[in-house]
Amino acid sequence: MASGSGVVEEVSKLIEVKARLQSDEGKHKFVLKTPKGTRDYNPKQMAIREKVFNTIIGCFKRHGAETIDTPVFELKETLTGKYGEDSKLIYDLKDQGGELLSLRYDLTVPFARYLAMNKITNIKRYHIAKVYRRDNPAMTRGRYREFYQCDFDIAGKYDPMIPDAECLKIIHEILTELQLGDFQIKVNDRRILDGIFAVCGVSDNKFRTICSSVDKLDKTLWEDVKNEMVGEKGLAPEAADQIGAYVRLSGGMALVEQLLQDPRLSQNKLALEGLEDIKMLFQYLTLFGVTDNVSFDLSLARGLDYYTGVIYEAVLLQNQGEVQIQQQNDHAEESVSVGSVAGGGRYDELVGMFDAKGRKVPCVGLSIGIERIFSIMEQKVEASEEKVRTTETQVLVAAAQKKLLEERLKLISELWDSGIKAEMLYKKNPKLLNQLQYCEETGIPLVAIIGEQELKDEVVKLRVVSTREEVNVSRRNLVEEIKKRSGQKS
Amino acid sequence: MASGSGVVEEVSKLIEVKARLQSDEGKHKFVLKTPKGTRDYNPKQMAIREKVFNTIIGCFKRHGAETIDTPVFELKETLTGKYGEDSKLIYDLKDQGGELLSLRYDLTVPFARYLAMNKITNIKRYHIAKVYRRDNPAMTRGRYREFYQCDFDIAGKYDPMIPDAECLKIIHEILTELQLGDFQIKVNDRRILDGIFAVCGVSDNKFRTICSSVDKLDKTLWEDVKNEMVGEKGLAPEAADQIGAYVRLSGGMALVEQLLQDPRLSQNKLALEGLEDIKMLFQYLTLFGVTDNVSFDLSLARGLDYYTGVIYEAVLLQNQGEVQIQQQNDHAEESVSVGSVAGGGRYDELVGMFDAKGRKVPCVGLSIGIERIFSIMEQKVEASEEKVRTTETQVLVAAAQKKLLEERLKLISELWDSGIKAEMLYKKNPKLLNQLQYCEETGIPLVAIIGEQELKDEVVKLRVVSTREEVNVSRRNLVEEIKKRSGQKS
Repeated sequence: MASGSGVVEEVSKLIEVKARLQSDEGKHKFVLKTPKGTRDYNPKQMAIREKVFNTIIGCFKRHGAETIDTPVFELKETLTGKYGEDSKLIYDLKDQGGELLSLRYDLTVPFARYLAMNKITNIKRYHIAKVYRRDNPAMTRGRYREFYQCDFDIAGKYDPMIPDAECLKIIHEILTELQLGDFQIKVNDRRILDGIFAVCGVSDNKFRTICSSVDKLDKTLWEDVKNEMVGEKGLAPEAADQIGAYVRLSGGMALVEQLLQDPRLSQNKLALEGLEDIKMLFQYLTLFGVTDNVSFDLSLARGLDYYTGVIYEAVLLQNQGEVQIQQQNDHAEESVSVGSVAGGGRYDELVGMFDAKGRKVPCVGLSIGIERIFSIMEQKVEASEEKVRTTETQVLVAAAQKKLLEERLKLISELWDSGIKAEMLYKKNPKLLNQLQYCEETGIPLVAIIGEQELKDEVVKLRVVSTREEVNVSRRNLVEEIKKRSGQKS
Repeated sequence: MASGSGVVEEVSKLIEVKARLQSDEGKHKFVLKTPKGTRDYNPKQMAIREKVFNTIIGCFKRHGAETIDTPVFELKETLTGKYGEDSKLIYDLKDQGGELLSLRYDLTVPFARYLAMNKITNIKRYHIAKVYRRDNPAMTRGRYREFYQCDFDIAGKYDPMIPDAECLKIIHEILTELQLGDFQIKVNDRRILDGIFAVCGVSDNKFRTICSSVDKLDKTLWEDVKNEMVGEKGLAPEAADQIGAYVRLSGGMALVEQLLQDPRLSQNKLALEGLEDIKMLFQYLTLFGVTDNVSFDLSLARGLDYYTGVIYEAVLLQNQGEVQIQQQNDHAEESVSVGSVAGGGRYDELVGMFDAKGRKVPCVGLSIGIERIFSIMEQKVEASEEKVRTTETQVLVAAAQKKLLEERLKLISELWDSGIKAEMLYKKNPKLLNQLQYCEETGIPLVAIIGEQELKDEVVKLRVVSTREEVNVSRRNLVEEIKKRSGQKS
């Protein structure tokens, strides 16, 4: 039975309360989170990340690559018109006066811009850096809005298929070395796909859209892909059926030979070029000894517009290790899905798009899908209950009694200056037990203990944490002894 | 004598021409540049960068640090209210729906957010990553809008001045190891400055603004700083003079003792705490053997708001190397200016700002001004005409005759699989001279040459590029021989 004015009073009270709550929030409360689709890496994740990066960089360097770096953002116009439909996923910066900027979407377009800008016609470079996509994140499966790409590219006019074969060899080496289980590298050529579309009666202007339907074959049944081609994209059902007969083929060298004999396809210039290159590629891959894992797969299309020749994609096959991880995981949807972990191809036109005179620099490259690999490695580590060290500390400088802070500071300073990785507790008078416990927790293998007696005798008591063995070492020999016992190559 | 309609015609023609020019531009021309204040790193710059990073990371690891990583952007509100006036330099992302985001301005605020979010009370971590400031770039002096920070921080409640002393030791180790010439580390304490302001009659609400005037003393004469305090900030001239008498003092332990006896300053609680801590700091630094390069400098104020205790800054002193570089440089303004290359301090309140209950985590840390160091190193390399290798390739696989592509592919594949860093030219039939020239240009030390004869004899001719010495090596021993002769630790 509130009167009219009573309601008004009530409402204004509520508004006041809300305002106060909001201002309290403004003062004291922060939403403590990282932006959607991003994450922090904690020290343990960083240790795993460092290990994976070292393997990958090691391989890139083994193949003689240099490295470059580019800014995290580019002029917006640099990215315009390179990604087709996916352009909507680009992060733009706010217009704060000056240039219009966007966060890089991949490392390939900045690489092409770099080549054109510096008029570089030959380079073999790797680039490991974060890229940004306003995509729908699926973080448990390693899909983020901020994620690393590890790219290796060879730019330059060379004899056909030699750099292309090296790219596949690199993918093979990296996936083998990372011990991710069985994998398969699918290979195809954009020219073969275009040739198929042509001989099946697809009009030129529908090549790209039919190609993106084919691209879905790894996740979708042929019937559904066909429906999309016919229903949504207006292709004649017979044309779709003919395409279907081709793109469901996969095999090795024998399939290449078979298609080279195919009366229709071999009449198409583009397809013929593509098939002959794939044949040469397989010859080189045989010499590299990696054909067991490589399959010629006509359904492989790859999303990006800029590919012009050979394309490839590596997928992990469901394997023992994977099954174990999935079984241990209660939530099936949280488990790492088997999927693409590397991809790439030839893009001979992209650099020309940045050159005023359209001068082309042929390129071929690969990208390692590192976030998915991190996810797998992290789950492996979790499953194995293996202890991951997050520091490399060789020795803890400890005191057996009180009032030895100055002695500890002097000793640790000597060790640092001799290149020993050493820590101490930041307490004036830490208990010996606490110092030993710290080593147990963090995996430090040695303790250098000083006490009254040791100082008198000019020695340090060196304790091996794992065995509890203790030896007195003269100050003079301490550095050598630590190096020896902590397993450091000196 | 153009008629009225003639002018209209003329104008519409001009408009048409302009429109065509613009559309041509849109189609074919890109502004080939990186955004203002940013740069690409070419392979040579990357090689120098890697060397500097390795030194710095080596030092951080020697001191037992873990590492973390955070996203390049944060929720806008995470950065709000942390940088005072400098907030205007923050890059915001465009509102594309969803959260409001900003590029990180430094690594300290994300670190504090990370600690609060994960309720971490103890950590010693380093973080090397790019940060973003819409500042006025001065790229020849190493001032960019996108630049690296190398941060090391110790978070946790510990006994006073032990972690603080370690931070200064780390700066000392890094600057020494990088061989940048003479340097000085200035030390002060925010509490001493506040104490000075208090005893000189500055009102509480003017502490921060007077502090930022003091901060200019490294680049500005005292007279000008005084004018700013009195004229712009309304301080009484006598108060300014009293402040001037203090902040122009600098020295070592003797100055600390003198100020501890100062009848006015020693009566101020904050100043007394600060002075006693500085005294303790100097004692620890003496044990670390680094006091020669450290000076207690009361003019040091540091810009950022969040410091609460000890602050420090390292500057390079004009030295021989520097002078040489400057003399070699025609344009004086392009030479690397002598300036701050490291800084840091204690910030005990920042983490609490992110905690709903205001729980504090005391922190002390340092940041290495790596871009300035890169500039100096690059100029040093230029000046020395030292040849910087941008790859680590040990051997080039070469052919002495034509038609040996398959043999080269087989051999290089064997070498890669044995961990040898190897390259070959991507030509079917390269000339031997071109292959040898490639080694000269890129610094590859060895060439593994195969020819008809070598294939028959089941050997490879191993050529040392620098001496032109050649030996026949059996295929079986090739890997070992390459490791030995290319100086790789196997």
